[in-house]
Amino acid sequence: MLVNGKQMRPIWFDEASGRVRVIDQRRLPHELEILTLDSVDRVIHAIQEMVVRGAPLIGVTGAYGVMVALEASADQADFSRECQRIRQARPTAVNLAWAVDRVQEKVLQARGADARLNAARHEAGIIAAEEVDNCRRIGEHGARLIARIAEVKGGAPVNVLTHCNAGWLACVEWGTATAPVYVAHEQGLPVHVWVDETRPLNQGARLTAWELGQGGISHTVITDNAGGHLMQHGMVDLVIVGTDRSTYTGDVANKIGTYLKALAARDNGVPFYVALPSSTFDWQMRDGLKEIPIEERHPDEVRYVQGKTAAGTDRVLITPPESPAANFAFDVTPSRLVTGFITERGVCAANEKAVLELFPEQRGQGRA
Amino acid sequence: MLVNGKQMRPIWFDEASGRVRVIDQRRLPHELEILTLDSVDRVIHAIQEMVVRGAPLIGVTGAYGVMVALEASADQADFSRECQRIRQARPTAVNLAWAVDRVQEKVLQARGADARLNAARHEAGIIAAEEVDNCRRIGEHGARLIARIAEVKGGAPVNVLTHCNAGWLACVEWGTATAPVYVAHEQGLPVHVWVDETRPLNQGARLTAWELGQGGISHTVITDNAGGHLMQHGMVDLVIVGTDRSTYTGDVANKIGTYLKALAARDNGVPFYVALPSSTFDWQMRDGLKEIPIEERHPDEVRYVQGKTAAGTDRVLITPPESPAANFAFDVTPSRLVTGFITERGVCAANEKAVLELFPEQRGQGRA
Repeated sequence: MLVNGKQMRPIWFDEASGRVRVIDQRRLPHELEILTLDSVDRVIHAIQEMVVRGAPLIGVTGAYGVMVALEASADQADFSRECQRIRQARPTAVNLAWAVDRVQEKVLQARGADARLNAARHEAGIIAAEEVDNCRRIGEHGARLIARIAEVKGGAPVNVLTHCNAGWLACVEWGTATAPVYVAHEQGLPVHVWVDETRPLNQGARLTAWELGQGGISHTVITDNAGGHLMQHGMVDLVIVGTDRSTYTGDVANKIGTYLKALAARDNGVPFYVALPSSTFDWQMRDGLKEIPIEERHPDEVRYVQGKTAAGTDRVLITPPESPAANFAFDVTPSRLVTGFITERGVCAANEKAVLELFPEQRGQGRA
Repeated sequence: MLVNGKQMRPIWFDEASGRVRVIDQRRLPHELEILTLDSVDRVIHAIQEMVVRGAPLIGVTGAYGVMVALEASADQADFSRECQRIRQARPTAVNLAWAVDRVQEKVLQARGADARLNAARHEAGIIAAEEVDNCRRIGEHGARLIARIAEVKGGAPVNVLTHCNAGWLACVEWGTATAPVYVAHEQGLPVHVWVDETRPLNQGARLTAWELGQGGISHTVITDNAGGHLMQHGMVDLVIVGTDRSTYTGDVANKIGTYLKALAARDNGVPFYVALPSSTFDWQMRDGLKEIPIEERHPDEVRYVQGKTAAGTDRVLITPPESPAANFAFDVTPSRLVTGFITERGVCAANEKAVLELFPEQRGQGRA
């Protein structure tokens, strides 16, 4: 997608050096810095410290991580252990385990060191390409929802509210929640995005706002507290969010605070959609609220806020030094509050029957 | 209340100098600075820039502001105009107009310059004393709710969630939402408070956390996004918030984001109480959502976050420099989501009938 008018992705394989490069998303929007992931420790650090984040991108990073693990050691036991470490770097997004397993399997099928390395690189590239393709399709299906509202509104901008960043920075291109917005914009539909800042790490204020600005999309940053008020006053036509893991029964784990927006959407008759590639479905879990592991992160992410001062990037302490804080990273929105899923195969209701109709090959797999 | 072990209030009349002093709440928790309000402009600045904030404290500040206006000019027209300016300094809290009108009326009844000045000082002092008394009573009534839950929980801490600061810093002593907590703590009941940070100005993270810490109350700061998740997992027993204006029919204007917590409380069967002195009731309005004016403040309050760096107090820009932001300061929680009001006269349901039973003298006043 466009950064200062040039095409860029949050992760890429640099052919010249044979290295995996990523945008350091902790530094955005004020600095655009590129990191090289040339060891398993660096891959894990990038995932855990949120150099890269977002379910699809974590998956792609994990996929390339398998290649990095293989480069570090061709020993079977070492390789398996390192893959396992990558797989467990973060607990909530299901794409990470899915992608690591998929590349690892391809590696184990290949014979000889070169073939195995090629298999890893090739499969990681395929996963990245698939995510781009899936996101584009999500965009096309979702843009039809925006077009329908635009028609009813007779040319007035369609107001989409989103939480966190499920944009191209969280994926590879297009994004999931933002894809319908980018495609609608491409089609000339009038669209405006309310961007939840998304404390504690402000992925909305930092990343979604930056992405949309770079893409020339009209947007307004709001606090996480504001969405309910906007919906009460008819200022939101549609909520679209991403997800780190959704059960095939319709429960949605996403950045903490998503559930509150879903409640407000329901209370005000605003459609609440979740955009996701099928790699983000968990086909094993039936009850998201009970079963999806919710990561608890360091309390300092709550106690401090990072940003730009006159002197450069810094962080400020907002609480009294001695006050404790808690930092739950995700919450689960139950299926009853979700109007529908926007997937690469189309839009469906957030329940087992509708999801399995769209993905019939998953029937009889796991618990589905 | 206690600050570093010494009794302190957020506003007081300093007998020695004849001046009104306030804690500059913009500087807390990292600096404790005292300002003198010795001109009408300074009174208005203090209210608008949130040196003082919270409905009861804004009321008391407005009351002393009438005295300051009278000191500046005894001319009837000047005085009325200045009172009007103070009255309109902020639109949402009803206490401001109520307190200014009340002191102004006493002044107009008195004869002679000295008597008028004495009347103003005296009435402002009475309003402050009444608020202290009201808050203490709110605390006693509310503590009974906590005691009942403590009994059911058999000694495990009662988890109270609160939004923004409706503590003694927002009042004069005790606070409104925090008063039940302080009184319960005094009574030896085990209580723990989840403190919503309350973006954009972080009155929870900065002020409520500081207050509770000074008072030795167990508490944990959370992002505004987290409360729903906590309620889904049984980690909140009771929500208590304050209000800037509530209709006598039960609708509650409070800091932006309150409505989202009320929705989550309803969805999870958690009682949601609003603590208020009767000075915060609006006896004229029937429909809070349509009628209560919602202040829109400067977008930079959203774009920047203030706190402490290694070098001192500073603010950091969190959004891209060119991204716009919107800053609605309050929202309205409809009465259907409110379990009850905790007032100085007791606890009642959030509806016209119950409120007027507790305050029968308001029948036939205004639209009540």
